Amino acid sequence: MSEILRIGVIGAGRIGKIHGENIARFIPQAKLEGIADIRLTGEQEAWAKALGARIVSRDPQDLFKDPAIQAVVICSSTDTHADLTIAAAKAGKQIFCEKPIDLSIPKVKSALEAVKTAGLTLQIGFNRRFDHNFARIRELTLAGEIGDVQIVKISSRDPAPPPPAYVAVSGGIFIDMMIHDFDMARFQAGSGITEVYAAGAVLVDPEIGKAGDVDTALVTLKFANGAIGVIDNSRKAVYGYDQRVEVFGSKGAAAAENDLPSTVKLSNASGVIGEKPLYFFLERYKDAFINEMISFTSAALNKKPAAVTGEDGLEDMYAALAAAKSLKEKRPVPIDEIRAQY
Amino acid sequence: MSEILRIGVIGAGRIGKIHGENIARFIPQAKLEGIADIRLTGEQEAWAKALGARIVSRDPQDLFKDPAIQAVVICSSTDTHADLTIAAAKAGKQIFCEKPIDLSIPKVKSALEAVKTAGLTLQIGFNRRFDHNFARIRELTLAGEIGDVQIVKISSRDPAPPPPAYVAVSGGIFIDMMIHDFDMARFQAGSGITEVYAAGAVLVDPEIGKAGDVDTALVTLKFANGAIGVIDNSRKAVYGYDQRVEVFGSKGAAAAENDLPSTVKLSNASGVIGEKPLYFFLERYKDAFINEMISFTSAALNKKPAAVTGEDGLEDMYAALAAAKSLKEKRPVPIDEIRAQY
Amino acid sequence: MSEILRIGVIGAGRIGKIHGENIARFIPQAKLEGIADIRLTGEQEAWAKALGARIVSRDPQDLFKDPAIQAVVICSSTDTHADLTIAAAKAGKQIFCEKPIDLSIPKVKSALEAVKTAGLTLQIGFNRRFDHNFARIRELTLAGEIGDVQIVKISSRDPAPPPPAYVAVSGGIFIDMMIHDFDMARFQAGSGITEVYAAGAVLVDPEIGKAGDVDTALVTLKFANGAIGVIDNSRKAVYGYDQRVEVFGSKGAAAAENDLPSTVKLSNASGVIGEKPLYFFLERYKDAFINEMISFTSAALNKKPAAVTGEDGLEDMYAALAAAKSLKEKRPVPIDEIRAQY
Amino acid sequence: MSEILRIGVIGAGRIGKIHGENIARFIPQAKLEGIADIRLTGEQEAWAKALGARIVSRDPQDLFKDPAIQAVVICSSTDTHADLTIAAAKAGKQIFCEKPIDLSIPKVKSALEAVKTAGLTLQIGFNRRFDHNFARIRELTLAGEIGDVQIVKISSRDPAPPPPAYVAVSGGIFIDMMIHDFDMARFQAGSGITEVYAAGAVLVDPEIGKAGDVDTALVTLKFANGAIGVIDNSRKAVYGYDQRVEVFGSKGAAAAENDLPSTVKLSNASGVIGEKPLYFFLERYKDAFINEMISFTSAALNKKPAAVTGEDGLEDMYAALAAAKSLKEKRPVPIDEIRAQY
Repeated sequence: MSEILRIGVIGAGRIGKIHGENIARFIPQAKLEGIADIRLTGEQEAWAKALGARIVSRDPQDLFKDPAIQAVVICSSTDTHADLTIAAAKAGKQIFCEKPIDLSIPKVKSALEAVKTAGLTLQIGFNRRFDHNFARIRELTLAGEIGDVQIVKISSRDPAPPPPAYVAVSGGIFIDMMIHDFDMARFQAGSGITEVYAAGAVLVDPEIGKAGDVDTALVTLKFANGAIGVIDNSRKAVYGYDQRVEVFGSKGAAAAENDLPSTVKLSNASGVIGEKPLYFFLERYKDAFINEMISFTSAALNKKPAAVTGEDGLEDMYAALAAAKSLKEKRPVPIDEIRAQY
Repeated sequence: MSEILRIGVIGAGRIGKIHGENIARFIPQAKLEGIADIRLTGEQEAWAKALGARIVSRDPQDLFKDPAIQAVVICSSTDTHADLTIAAAKAGKQIFCEKPIDLSIPKVKSALEAVKTAGLTLQIGFNRRFDHNFARIRELTLAGEIGDVQIVKISSRDPAPPPPAYVAVSGGIFIDMMIHDFDMARFQAGSGITEVYAAGAVLVDPEIGKAGDVDTALVTLKFANGAIGVIDNSRKAVYGYDQRVEVFGSKGAAAAENDLPSTVKLSNASGVIGEKPLYFFLERYKDAFINEMISFTSAALNKKPAAVTGEDGLEDMYAALAAAKSLKEKRPVPIDEIRAQY
Repeated sequence: MSEILRIGVIGAGRIGKIHGENIARFIPQAKLEGIADIRLTGEQEAWAKALGARIVSRDPQDLFKDPAIQAVVICSSTDTHADLTIAAAKAGKQIFCEKPIDLSIPKVKSALEAVKTAGLTLQIGFNRRFDHNFARIRELTLAGEIGDVQIVKISSRDPAPPPPAYVAVSGGIFIDMMIHDFDMARFQAGSGITEVYAAGAVLVDPEIGKAGDVDTALVTLKFANGAIGVIDNSRKAVYGYDQRVEVFGSKGAAAAENDLPSTVKLSNASGVIGEKPLYFFLERYKDAFINEMISFTSAALNKKPAAVTGEDGLEDMYAALAAAKSLKEKRPVPIDEIRAQY
Repeated sequence: MSEILRIGVIGAGRIGKIHGENIARFIPQAKLEGIADIRLTGEQEAWAKALGARIVSRDPQDLFKDPAIQAVVICSSTDTHADLTIAAAKAGKQIFCEKPIDLSIPKVKSALEAVKTAGLTLQIGFNRRFDHNFARIRELTLAGEIGDVQIVKISSRDPAPPPPAYVAVSGGIFIDMMIHDFDMARFQAGSGITEVYAAGAVLVDPEIGKAGDVDTALVTLKFANGAIGVIDNSRKAVYGYDQRVEVFGSKGAAAAENDLPSTVKLSNASGVIGEKPLYFFLERYKDAFINEMISFTSAALNKKPAAVTGEDGLEDMYAALAAAKSLKEKRPVPIDEIRAQY
């Protein structure tokens, strides 16, 4: 076992930069060896070099064929994830891939198959499992403090809606936004989802409706272990990024409130005023992005299964597709109904 | 307009005693004139006299036929509510009736018809609307602080399940327990419920399952104004009576936490420990019971519509019946489907 | 032992009315027998009769000489407290007296002597000991949860200053306002105060300074058991009545936050906004006033020492006089230095 | 103006390592050029090289004489601070020096004089001013939200006492521990301290008393602007590092609660349990250490006065010495009395 994991990052957009910097600066057991981006700009090149990247390229193959690189972090556009995963698997690289692997289930399956055949570690970028609050809830459940999980409640609301143009190609609210919450629900329940029922509405922006999507959604979940749950999403909470989870069980309940910029409360003639939640995912999940990469580094170095596997990504996808179908057909949809289609 | 409402209370059980004492002691504009209970005990008689009741009887007719009594508060067993309401209406008394009016919709309708014909005020005992927390949320919504209501979330969990024998005759969790939450949901949304989808499970006590009911339930709501919502119920929260409401809208969100016996927090080597919620409805809704009676008194004296009308009770009933049907048939059920049956 | 304590209330001003109503309506073991007020108005007379008072008079002697009355509650102006206490003691009545007994220590001592000679129960109206929050802290300490008390911190701030004219005759901030906090400090420390050091300033209203008083004060306390403490007072907190206590010890710390009208928080573009504290002492200590009277009733019926004795009142007075002297002479003042003067 | 500040760190102990890593990893405008430690170990050398330090030495002179190095961060033992500050000033380096500059006021003055003569920026390591919570309070005050500051309250308690051997050479609780709080008090009041009165006790560990110190202290403060304040310190809070500040003024009050590892609350049969505060200063002030170095870097690059000057360090020292004298002589001590001694 090598003590340091040498990593190449594919894609130097917003999330690629976060992973690149985290690897270069915060993870003693990882080293940023290279960056590849097919539309590499001068600014990105300078950034990569400042972080000490040895390879800076427009071609991911430059990372795949470099023998020193042991792992790749795939942060390119979604439609390239599956192919890059397969290529990385063939090259024998351990893989961290941003979610989703692909919008097409068969392509996801092909990618997972390639990884499995190669006997590699694949971690999907469901970063919220590594958030201090949500990880703490799961820790309490695993420590027996909650007893049997009976109800899981997740509120997940964005501070502002994406542009309608983005919405149109996003795969819809369930694939684009709630997929994180399906993953959180499965994580917190410690059990798979067996059925979903989705209610949705266009309450934030009529343009989102015109793009064929909803902007407000509420999905009931049934889990294999008998628990039930609910997720609510809104594309726009005026008070900011609202990310809360509650797990209720036979011995207790654990609930996470939002993270705030400070604990300060101002008392004046208007009331007692606390701060709004940290603005958006970059602020709220800053440490979670580091923690997921530490987890991946450790799994890859030790050739152990990832904390969030390709199968997790697939299951979350099934839940999202089932929710979309439920909304359309106005009925509860069993996950197996989706699974059977592929 | 008389300045004092002279009231007779029918039924001197737990809730009857609460209303009797509240009328006698806390409501300057009301006077407790009489108490009737068909199984009147010596203890109840002494209690009634100590409160200054002029009439203490086993026969509600003694209240109906007394000309000084202007209003009755019906707290007898559920199966007597409809008949007593009709009798009270015929006697020209203003009526406060504990929920539900009846488990049979036709009987409810007959009772409402009688009240309507007589041109009287009828208030149903949905006390939670008068809780300081929930009333405050509604006040904020009416003041425009929430904007358009988009999502309503209600958690309502009991500290301990009722005996299975009670469950068997209770009408089930939706009629017996969640009906309060349907009423709260309609109150907070400021809109009627149009459709429900119910998930339920037996997770607390298998005996409840044997009695044909569930003890854990989660119901998705759609409202006429486009908002969506969710209610979760559990028959047993080990930490006590959990009563929370959150209303999310286009301009903000308001959320109520539980009421506690004190604000004290103990910090020690185990953590920072706050108190559990007030134990159960008698403690939590102590002031709400007074406030609803003040509201009724004022409406009756001024011959105005009640804050919670018979139609509200009927609508809540429809929602409960729809939820029960949804659970049984595993599909969303429109309220109109229930309404059309009667 | 009689089961009901028959009480006469002397003084029908604001606090007298509170005690009168509490006795008449909320304390099953007490009965309001009479009301005396030397300036009795028609309104007060009507109020007293509505509460069922048998004797309504301008002469306290009518209460003292009535053989059925076992106890009196003295709520008249401060300058009459000592004489009325002595008269009540001579008449063999159990006594509840609003604080302070007198501004003159010799008069206080005379009154205490009279009560002692007569072998009666005397309770002083330090209502805050009966507040649910502060009583809970003391309960935790007595249960051993705090360990040895090391630091006591009290914040006590009024929503608005009294008129300067009142200030001029009030005895000053330490006698008029902080005396409650000295009592709370002794209660929470479970120990007497041995020395005080006072800092004070005129920051709220220059007129208060002209009246010879300060409006902002901070007093360091040393207790006989070795603990130390601090009280801060302000005559004006724009956010309302601020009443908090913190007790820190070898095994933990307990802290009470303010009571609020509701638990609701409004999240919007400005922040997360909670309610201001309950407005002033009538709202905040509503239940504490009832609880202190229940405590007095029980002590008087059982001929046991009161929860807050005349000696407590005297000790609180010494602390207040020491603080005033400390502020004037700009040095710490031992309580024994004050005690030795009398 | 150069865009990057090239920094040498003197002393590679606990705090030196924190600053070294922060400079190397988190501050884009700073570069770690060298490390010097007179007792440099192999481990420290490896650590310095891994961070990219060009100079790794046992002799601070190697940093002073390097022309590329523009600034030094002095983290060596306290008794070397003044001499190193003077040497750095002579070498024309901008200076960040850990607190205190020296336990001897004349030595502090010599160091400040040298810096002043050289026209350099000197920042003292009072990191708490850069804490997100405390900075937020100050921000609110500066924004006018508090109005005139009237009362400042600071609680500052350690999770565990230092060994008595350390206490004996620490300079005592006021110099060693409360000096941070004097600095915070001046920062929050926006005004100098004019007088202190100290109460102290040995309540945690008798060995601390034998070493001539107290372990529990409470100091009253008077500020030049008329405000008053109080600081309480304990060497041992069983629930962990307790760091709270409250500023009360004419228009409002702002209060900071402790930072916690997560927002999760566990509700069970014992209560509603939150987490203990972050363990100690390394955890709690992790970001504050980064922020203070960013602030220094910016001041040094722009040749502006530091956010915390040498004069601040001197004033805090005066307050600590005055508190020690107050405790010993049992009287309030004006700061000018201390100032006049030097």
